[in-house]
Amino acid sequence: MNEQILLAERPKGMPTKDTFKYEKIEMPTAKEGEVLVQTLYLSVDPYMRGRMNDTKSYVPPFELNAPLAGGIVARVMESKSDRFKEGDIVTGMLPWKRYSAAEAKNLQKVDPELAPITTAIGVLGMPGLTAYFGLLEIGQPKEGETVVVSGAAGAVGSVVGQIAKIKGARVVGIAGSEDKIAYLKDELGFDEVINYKKGNVKEALKEACPNGVDVYFENVGGEISDAVVSLLNKFARIPLCGQISLYNLEKQDVGPRVQTPLLINSALMKGFIVADYADKFPEGIKQLGEWVQQGKIKYSENVVEGFENVPEAFLGLFEGANLGKQLVKVAE
Amino acid sequence: MNEQILLAERPKGMPTKDTFKYEKIEMPTAKEGEVLVQTLYLSVDPYMRGRMNDTKSYVPPFELNAPLAGGIVARVMESKSDRFKEGDIVTGMLPWKRYSAAEAKNLQKVDPELAPITTAIGVLGMPGLTAYFGLLEIGQPKEGETVVVSGAAGAVGSVVGQIAKIKGARVVGIAGSEDKIAYLKDELGFDEVINYKKGNVKEALKEACPNGVDVYFENVGGEISDAVVSLLNKFARIPLCGQISLYNLEKQDVGPRVQTPLLINSALMKGFIVADYADKFPEGIKQLGEWVQQGKIKYSENVVEGFENVPEAFLGLFEGANLGKQLVKVAE
Repeated sequence: MNEQILLAERPKGMPTKDTFKYEKIEMPTAKEGEVLVQTLYLSVDPYMRGRMNDTKSYVPPFELNAPLAGGIVARVMESKSDRFKEGDIVTGMLPWKRYSAAEAKNLQKVDPELAPITTAIGVLGMPGLTAYFGLLEIGQPKEGETVVVSGAAGAVGSVVGQIAKIKGARVVGIAGSEDKIAYLKDELGFDEVINYKKGNVKEALKEACPNGVDVYFENVGGEISDAVVSLLNKFARIPLCGQISLYNLEKQDVGPRVQTPLLINSALMKGFIVADYADKFPEGIKQLGEWVQQGKIKYSENVVEGFENVPEAFLGLFEGANLGKQLVKVAE
Repeated sequence: MNEQILLAERPKGMPTKDTFKYEKIEMPTAKEGEVLVQTLYLSVDPYMRGRMNDTKSYVPPFELNAPLAGGIVARVMESKSDRFKEGDIVTGMLPWKRYSAAEAKNLQKVDPELAPITTAIGVLGMPGLTAYFGLLEIGQPKEGETVVVSGAAGAVGSVVGQIAKIKGARVVGIAGSEDKIAYLKDELGFDEVINYKKGNVKEALKEACPNGVDVYFENVGGEISDAVVSLLNKFARIPLCGQISLYNLEKQDVGPRVQTPLLINSALMKGFIVADYADKFPEGIKQLGEWVQQGKIKYSENVVEGFENVPEAFLGLFEGANLGKQLVKVAE
């Protein structure tokens, strides 16, 4: 038998277990041009919260009473395409099911010899590429500049900080636990990391950024964002990647408008999604792969076991539970 | 005798006549390398309000009990420099005085044969160049796109809209009187102009921009800005030029944060001042001059007569009194 996870209701504010519904379904069969795959690892990501709302965003909303979907690493069980053969490891955007029939053209092959297969939905996949293009195309850090990254211990933020270090910048992270701070400073080489749950973030940032802020890689939004924006240098750049602090907000996000600080500093703020850079993905994956092999980029994965624990893993993202990439292991 | 206008006190909120002080002073004398000039036309600009505060901005604050300063067109009365001779018309950043001694290297010569000399502080000067570089370098309007400009009847906004038309965009202005609207539509060829003082700006904008907003040239800030931001298209660009609605605000500027709409639309917002493009000024002046000569860019000047009326002309900027460039004629 097969199993899937549906969007049972559109959450108001923070999702709960009632947001999701498990359902037993029949095993799929692969048609011509398709492959039958078994889900091995499933990615849960903050941006999925946006798709649970019935509002315009950069990806269409999830449908009610239909399976959720996201980045998945899977094994080909049966192939009706000449692109793949049984036993191949593949990745793609797939529904939250134990088994799926998927069009072969929407899947990419994963080489288990190059790196652990989980990296295809982590440091060498969407989160790594998000860090790579957002920081290098928009942030453009230069040697000696100060780069601040919020959500610093997450799948994207941890890679952002390390790329900024490779480019010779001083890197200041913002994270929410002492464990994360120790990891970012001791393992990943961040210059300073601020615990936003302790004391005055603005004061701590001022102290950690004596020369102001040249690049702010924005993952969280809200008051943390306000604090960083107050320290911008002339010609600062702000890649807008996420706003996790707001995704479960029920009221409008109101705060000091950023126009004045951007104007005073000739600063740039730009939203993006990784798909904006799709034509450069091969370049990004190659460079990230080299840095990982050279040990210049380290990554951490937080693996929850069991398809039944997908909702829990997803909800943990909003409690700051994950150090690095949050994955669910569905099968060996 | 000479006369100057000093900053008598730093205004809280809207400046008043008490912000300024007239003073009779001695006639200056030109030293070696300097010229003695007589002020003919004096420019008053919204950005000057920022310099009246004692806070960091893109230009240093005016000093208390020292003369204010700005763009001026003047006649050389005596030259101790080989760059200029008596009778030359020059422009530069000069103090608000009837007569000044100024270093010749800080002045540019104005050719009265090419265009009226007032254009040196208008359409062919700082306001025109601000429109040119902000729109073309940051806004980058493409044929068929929708460009919205606020402060549309001002010295900058009116040029922005006309350049956008030259580039083949659909242009929607926002202005504050029926006279301005008629001028922008009938004389300058704007496609639509919204009166922000009448009815619901957001609804009016929605109607005027059925295909959304690709470029928003931002001169005013506040709720008008919020309304435009709610209509952004994917990959929209927002050159941040001014925030005139806020310059006299005594409390913090609070409103819906723009991060989410920018993120959802992969949109860009960038502050700038015209000096950021100083190395390209000759190109800008040449192109603007050609467009003016070809009749593709028209301009309007609002001239107040008399050095004694400078404060009144400045204060009028915040009441929307000016159609086009606000000048003060100090001498023939």
